[in-house]
Amino acid sequence: MAFAKGHGTENDFVLLPDPDGLLELDVRMVAELCHRHRGIGADGVLRVVRSTHFDGAPADAEWFMDYRNADGSIVEMCGNGVRVFARFLREEGLVDGRHVPIGTRAGTKLATFEDDGTITVDMGPPQLLGISHTTVGETPVMGTAISMGNPHLACDLAGTGLSVAGLSLLEEPEYDADFFPEGVNQEFYTDSEPLPGYDAHVHMRVHERGVGETRSCGTGICAVAVAALRRSERDSGAVVVDVPGGRLHVDVSPERVLLRGPAVVVARGTWNDPR
Amino acid sequence: MAFAKGHGTENDFVLLPDPDGLLELDVRMVAELCHRHRGIGADGVLRVVRSTHFDGAPADAEWFMDYRNADGSIVEMCGNGVRVFARFLREEGLVDGRHVPIGTRAGTKLATFEDDGTITVDMGPPQLLGISHTTVGETPVMGTAISMGNPHLACDLAGTGLSVAGLSLLEEPEYDADFFPEGVNQEFYTDSEPLPGYDAHVHMRVHERGVGETRSCGTGICAVAVAALRRSERDSGAVVVDVPGGRLHVDVSPERVLLRGPAVVVARGTWNDPR
Repeated sequence: MAFAKGHGTENDFVLLPDPDGLLELDVRMVAELCHRHRGIGADGVLRVVRSTHFDGAPADAEWFMDYRNADGSIVEMCGNGVRVFARFLREEGLVDGRHVPIGTRAGTKLATFEDDGTITVDMGPPQLLGISHTTVGETPVMGTAISMGNPHLACDLAGTGLSVAGLSLLEEPEYDADFFPEGVNQEFYTDSEPLPGYDAHVHMRVHERGVGETRSCGTGICAVAVAALRRSERDSGAVVVDVPGGRLHVDVSPERVLLRGPAVVVARGTWNDPR
Repeated sequence: MAFAKGHGTENDFVLLPDPDGLLELDVRMVAELCHRHRGIGADGVLRVVRSTHFDGAPADAEWFMDYRNADGSIVEMCGNGVRVFARFLREEGLVDGRHVPIGTRAGTKLATFEDDGTITVDMGPPQLLGISHTTVGETPVMGTAISMGNPHLACDLAGTGLSVAGLSLLEEPEYDADFFPEGVNQEFYTDSEPLPGYDAHVHMRVHERGVGETRSCGTGICAVAVAALRRSERDSGAVVVDVPGGRLHVDVSPERVLLRGPAVVVARGTWNDPR
């Protein structure tokens, strides 16, 4: 089976080119591909299929991103995944032009190739859900609850006595399960040095619902940018967000959040299903 | 750069075919290749070079295994690595016959292709170093100190109140630094159900010096087999050892320890150095 491997700020994916939709992906196969020791190893799989060969794909995008989590489960969307997907399409010569619409289970997402080599994805509008809280170790922390299609709690660590670097996220911080009945992605951030031209610069770490701590999380980065601006009652602005896997730029407005950063394809080859 | 990826009981390697010794491997490149999110991801790199193109390679093996740890450091030998290396040579048609000598920095190691598809490697003689101790959490544990070229402390958990499954190996257990001035690989094992034809059947976990817990460790498995037989004052016998990554068979004698188990190549391709 032909594959490529790519990542966006160390959120990594196995890409499976399948233009004609001939590949029958099952849970076992995805888990085997993503296994860090037995397989290629990745956070998820991106099957690359023409929209005409995927039932229910949006009609306004030529290519559909069939995204699966490393455990084989189906997830609607993945911000870093869309950016890596766009890079792959471009490198394979499957698309041209600066703007590329990409079909996902959460609708069509627009990817833009920037002049500096980064790729931007339009993550849609943020939705403020209110204020909630979580507990890290023994320390209670307040946060801003935000939906980016999936639920987030973005917590400023200022005044808590906790630091981003010193944070232990081995265990899931205890969020309010009444507020988030379906679980929540939890982000912890603090301010970094001001950068010219930006309204905020923060660094953050993230505990992803059902996954654990990850190197980068597209929707979580967007949520933190929204929350960081919100502290000065702004609903728009430009934010730089540093995650363990690298740096992203976020442009926030009430209509859409634009997530911009690097996305690369690092390897191509063939995989032998051990079954 | 052409690569393959393979593993033996989930101890995984990036193989770099380099018959003519043209590849200049540096620490950065190895670390990048082995990075689990940015690279291919592996416990180490096996450069596949003809012995005639490697200074100091043993003269009695056609192929030399230039092994590097994931952090880029040079390590003399790796039992699972030799087995995966042999599988790769065979699949590429670079060797034939049942027995294949493989040059390593610790001398020539003999790999044998078994009829059941497994691969055996002769790990050389064990050397008993005495009795030492370590501390897991707050619990003191006695162990048998054994050299398999590198130092091991093989600890039977019977009577300690600890279980292999419940063991926390996130932190390195506190060994006796006077006994092991250069550090030690620490194994913890208990007996499993008896298997016909075997003198012992144990399951174990391992904390590798400078690495942390791993899914499998060739020399550690050999050390545990030696220690398990030692309990009934035997210096020879057949032992089945289960590790988190799978099952290995060990044949112990005072002259040599034979390590047998699966070894597979799962992918082939090309890698783009991001530099």
